[in-house]
Amino acid sequence: MFKELWRQRAELIAADLERELRATKSLDENLLRAMEYSLLAGGKRLRPILLMAAADSVGVSGEKFIKVADALEMIHTYSLIHDDLPAMDNDDYRRGKLTNHKVFGEATAILAGDALLTLAFEVALRQKEVAPEILLEVLKEISTAAGVAGMVGGQAIDLHAEGVKIDFATLKLMHLGKTGALFRAAIRSGAILAGATAQKLESLTCYAENFGLAFQITDDILDVTGDEKILGKPTGSDAKNLKSTYVSLTSLDEAKKLAAATVEAALDALKNFGDEADFLRELVKYLVAREK
Amino acid sequence: MFKELWRQRAELIAADLERELRATKSLDENLLRAMEYSLLAGGKRLRPILLMAAADSVGVSGEKFIKVADALEMIHTYSLIHDDLPAMDNDDYRRGKLTNHKVFGEATAILAGDALLTLAFEVALRQKEVAPEILLEVLKEISTAAGVAGMVGGQAIDLHAEGVKIDFATLKLMHLGKTGALFRAAIRSGAILAGATAQKLESLTCYAENFGLAFQITDDILDVTGDEKILGKPTGSDAKNLKSTYVSLTSLDEAKKLAAATVEAALDALKNFGDEADFLRELVKYLVAREK
Repeated sequence: MFKELWRQRAELIAADLERELRATKSLDENLLRAMEYSLLAGGKRLRPILLMAAADSVGVSGEKFIKVADALEMIHTYSLIHDDLPAMDNDDYRRGKLTNHKVFGEATAILAGDALLTLAFEVALRQKEVAPEILLEVLKEISTAAGVAGMVGGQAIDLHAEGVKIDFATLKLMHLGKTGALFRAAIRSGAILAGATAQKLESLTCYAENFGLAFQITDDILDVTGDEKILGKPTGSDAKNLKSTYVSLTSLDEAKKLAAATVEAALDALKNFGDEADFLRELVKYLVAREK
Repeated sequence: MFKELWRQRAELIAADLERELRATKSLDENLLRAMEYSLLAGGKRLRPILLMAAADSVGVSGEKFIKVADALEMIHTYSLIHDDLPAMDNDDYRRGKLTNHKVFGEATAILAGDALLTLAFEVALRQKEVAPEILLEVLKEISTAAGVAGMVGGQAIDLHAEGVKIDFATLKLMHLGKTGALFRAAIRSGAILAGATAQKLESLTCYAENFGLAFQITDDILDVTGDEKILGKPTGSDAKNLKSTYVSLTSLDEAKKLAAATVEAALDALKNFGDEADFLRELVKYLVAREK
């Protein structure tokens, strides 16, 4: 049920992303192909899924807000394209496919990222059936989370953290930015779009922050304990690259305990929610138990 | 009077950009410094100035809309930072200063551009005293102009146009995207924010399109006839780089005639406007007569 709904919605989102790309008039065909290459490369569609699930949890079907959901996926995808660039992580593969710049060249990859970030706002602005002031509030959430106080800021911390031992506070701040901020914005946006009360919004924000933390700790654990065949990428790369992680700064055992406690905190944040929040409950449990 | 107002407003805009940067919480100090380095490097502030002048022309002081004006300058600045990157134009200097990546490194320059584009939306969303649906409409104008159908699309055409003879239609489309779209959005945004009638909005759009064309033709002419000392950059670089320009695709004489006709068309578009449009009139005349 939970996984089936996830699969259905991921397909719905992918189809709408494709529709939006086809409806986009680009001055340059090659640029549009580069955007499409990365945006339609599959993936868990976790951020749009979170937005929808947060709306569900306060009693409004999240599928109504697909344009804002699309925008989150576009922002996530642009960040991956830029992150993979030679000047950044210099990665040749992502999800088993050549990275954007390996196929289209660096210049086009930079522009494809820029274009996806811009298109995210264009598409979010196409969201229907939402009061203008609510849409403005959601755009504030998303732009703040994607910028220097969030995702891009976290990336910048990461630049200096390569091969350097950082402290626990810096590690937390880095992940809070790199991945946490957009997860948080996804959940808060879904809640705000669905008209959540202040109290429910606060609870969902608490869920979101613990969700982000649990997600990252699990990532770090999988880099140590994961099965390369299932993961689809080599393990041990954090240790090899002298990357500070939740495992390296504590221990595998401590990291596992922290992950479990964080899931508990996320579930506890939803204690006043009914069945409508079951997807969010299943999701955080699934993500720490995952094998890839 | 005209130049004095321009100078005053450029200072006002620079001061507000600085204020916004200081109010911005960044997870990374170095990233904020990189953004500031390019954003506060001077420049004509032409796009925010155009927005304000368009609002003036329909009887509302454009200074009211400074947050949206800031956003345009941030988008312009991000595009310059990314345009100068080694994978793009590979420029070492801009306005007599080292380019962003020369000072901060490529990775930070990429992120500084990303961050400025994102901050543009954050800051535009802080615009006060505007009805929510009007602000949404303006954000649509700006995001469309900055994306694949506009600025980024024009950049992508430019990538393939290096050292290749392109036809007149492609040249026009490239500039329409690279510079024209954001000029147009600046003027239309100012008009929409000020509550222009549909007829005045249409006239200002016509002005904007001719303004952009006149600006670009003059750029191409100056690369042939300009004084290197006044321009602050070497002339003849278009010919050296086999770049197609309004001069190379016609002749110097034809280009000058086209520039003059375009200014006339821009002025004609304002024929039903009063003194309030004098700044826009002076501006287009000044920009084709300029020496740098």
